[in-house]
Amino acid sequence: MESTRERHHVVIVGGGFGGLEAARQLKGAPVEVTVLDRYNHHLFQPLLYQVATAVLSPGDISAPIRQVLRGPNITVLLAEARSIDVERKVLITDGGEIPYDTLVLATGATHSYFGHPEWARFAPGLKTVDDARDIRERVLLAFEAAEREPDPERQREWLTFVIIGAGPTGVELAGAIAYMTRHSLPRDFRRIDTSQARVLLLEGLPRILNVYPEELSERAHRDLEKIGVEVRTNAMVTDLDDEGVIVGDTRIPARTLLWGAGVAASPLARTLGAPLDRAGRVKVEPTLTVPGHEDVFVIGDLASLVQDGKPVPGVAPAAMQMGRHVGRSILRRLKGQPLEPFRYHDRGSFAVIGRGSAVGLLFNKYRLKGKPAWWMWLGVHITFLIGFRNKVAVMLDWAYTYFTKRRDVRLITGLHANRLPPLQPRTPPEHEPAHVH
Amino acid sequence: MESTRERHHVVIVGGGFGGLEAARQLKGAPVEVTVLDRYNHHLFQPLLYQVATAVLSPGDISAPIRQVLRGPNITVLLAEARSIDVERKVLITDGGEIPYDTLVLATGATHSYFGHPEWARFAPGLKTVDDARDIRERVLLAFEAAEREPDPERQREWLTFVIIGAGPTGVELAGAIAYMTRHSLPRDFRRIDTSQARVLLLEGLPRILNVYPEELSERAHRDLEKIGVEVRTNAMVTDLDDEGVIVGDTRIPARTLLWGAGVAASPLARTLGAPLDRAGRVKVEPTLTVPGHEDVFVIGDLASLVQDGKPVPGVAPAAMQMGRHVGRSILRRLKGQPLEPFRYHDRGSFAVIGRGSAVGLLFNKYRLKGKPAWWMWLGVHITFLIGFRNKVAVMLDWAYTYFTKRRDVRLITGLHANRLPPLQPRTPPEHEPAHVH
Repeated sequence: MESTRERHHVVIVGGGFGGLEAARQLKGAPVEVTVLDRYNHHLFQPLLYQVATAVLSPGDISAPIRQVLRGPNITVLLAEARSIDVERKVLITDGGEIPYDTLVLATGATHSYFGHPEWARFAPGLKTVDDARDIRERVLLAFEAAEREPDPERQREWLTFVIIGAGPTGVELAGAIAYMTRHSLPRDFRRIDTSQARVLLLEGLPRILNVYPEELSERAHRDLEKIGVEVRTNAMVTDLDDEGVIVGDTRIPARTLLWGAGVAASPLARTLGAPLDRAGRVKVEPTLTVPGHEDVFVIGDLASLVQDGKPVPGVAPAAMQMGRHVGRSILRRLKGQPLEPFRYHDRGSFAVIGRGSAVGLLFNKYRLKGKPAWWMWLGVHITFLIGFRNKVAVMLDWAYTYFTKRRDVRLITGLHANRLPPLQPRTPPEHEPAHVH
Repeated sequence: MESTRERHHVVIVGGGFGGLEAARQLKGAPVEVTVLDRYNHHLFQPLLYQVATAVLSPGDISAPIRQVLRGPNITVLLAEARSIDVERKVLITDGGEIPYDTLVLATGATHSYFGHPEWARFAPGLKTVDDARDIRERVLLAFEAAEREPDPERQREWLTFVIIGAGPTGVELAGAIAYMTRHSLPRDFRRIDTSQARVLLLEGLPRILNVYPEELSERAHRDLEKIGVEVRTNAMVTDLDDEGVIVGDTRIPARTLLWGAGVAASPLARTLGAPLDRAGRVKVEPTLTVPGHEDVFVIGDLASLVQDGKPVPGVAPAAMQMGRHVGRSILRRLKGQPLEPFRYHDRGSFAVIGRGSAVGLLFNKYRLKGKPAWWMWLGVHITFLIGFRNKVAVMLDWAYTYFTKRRDVRLITGLHANRLPPLQPRTPPEHEPAHVH
């Protein structure tokens, strides 16, 4: 251990947008950096919904953390952080303790089911590669089940997709699934008409995308309806199971439920003993340190910070800005300079609705809709995607998807046949009268 | 059911190379075709080892069966065949019975552990997308574990990879893993030198790739050794577990074992009541029908056929030729023409050793080695890969891998941290003396 004590040791927990940026700032600096993550890859979460809807492969939006952070003063470890002992300045992991001089917590957020953890298995959320594969398999399997199902009532249940929560992820999932049912799949099935599938987007608040100005919410609402999504606002989900969802007093039968509603901070935050907000995020100082512990920084979705009376949103650009700020703060402190407060610069955010359709807000001021917003979204995402191979792969898949309307990454890899309905007696396909013989 | 009886009903079980070709021959013909598979995708198995070694994504070498076989007379179903009742002419599936007029069985082969099914969980084989993901995760995880491991002895165990069986799959896995350890990974780790990893290829027979002429086996053997693979022939594995493998009387400690040794026919064959060979394959007539059951064809890896004193090999081209032959035979029979015997035309086969290195045998006569064999292998595989998107994606990934030597699809998506060794106390990296501080 001797050699390490010579240098200031920075431990960064989490290889997401925030952790990666913090580590990059410290690359080659006179500090020793250890980056921990329980996965081996950085994941570009803003495009994860496209893995879930069969456009992209997981490999296209992920990059090995140790490849991204190659550097003589950076050690990357696959390990899971369990808790923090701020007094002893030690991070406790699955593999033992790691002493730190400075700790940067960037473990992000997970799904919240509003006190109903049992809902998770019926309505998966979208945070990891395995989540995306799970959702992709559920969606694809629903069509396979419908093709097998002899009972028309149950067939409709298989062809009903309910997305709960109309934030950006919910909106993007709903739009992409509706597009699939209308444009990518119809010709592949003989017994069902996939374009008759129902895609419902449920939102508890009075409008969708409620962090955007009302005008953009309304536009997104209309655009979603145009491409076949049924949008219901003020729709509070009171219960759900593997056969449907209850909204108020009404039961909606559906075999595929997806969760885009709640977000909760990673449980690691609780072990700090610091003040948390309602979602479990650490209420940080303006410098992003934990109150009373100047040597612990919290960034990204794990941090709760109010700026100009508004909370800094849990989005990738905010996490990256925080990561950069903290990396620089650590270097400033080593030089004996005082820490500066963090300021979030909202350059813009987008939500995609469908092919050629998005809404966006630039610099919290300029409103973009339709095609311009969509093109801008494409450019921004390609720019921030990590790695040349990934940029090229994603661009090609987008071009292919745009021109062919196909979704080719349609993998069901688990064995599910015996959980599907009995086979229909073979009858001529209903929606292809030309082929009846 | 009435409408279906009007037309001859062909049921094809399995959407691999054989089943797909049979169905394609019948597309648009005056028969009703039902294709069943327990997965929804056709898988290009010859490139599966490249998914297992982080070059390609599963989506790049698979195609949705129902998209490939779109056609007014073809129905594709996700279903699992359980058994066949040849007397009642009925296929029994997980979802009920399907009556057939002609049945084509093309369910392929699975791994065989020579009477040791308990070995499967220690030494996975490579047949499905999930197999490939499992192997990829095990290989990548071994390096992560070695990076964490404080004990040098155990570190060496994590850095020892044993591939059992030196057929094409075993050779290709060994070559690709050796390449990874020498060229793709070294700069990503600080505490271990991945290029010191041992890659052992064990073969029970006196030479590797024993279906090839001796000259090519020897060349492949030498080329493998050049890129760092230890090849051991006449090496019979007598036992194995999660910490190593026993060869004869010697225990080789190793934490990653992969299986490329045995192949057994899909168990569906046994329910036919027809004569089987030792590997469980159906001994078919020269017309590829089951003896005594002219309405049941068996093709691909499930069929056992001797031609000119030699067995037709269980390779993709043979399965495709059989599928085409059976498709045409069914149409001939409907026209009242007699069935013709199948003849396998061995156009060639290849085994890749590494970057710019392969062996190949064309028309059972011309021997190819080194670069020419490798280039030809590239061309043949791109040609037979299904789908324009897949061809482009694979070519790009190959070009990228060739020029950068990187392997970017390095995903560990499961949570494994708590199964890894305790964290090393931080010491200066041993193999990078320049960075000791």
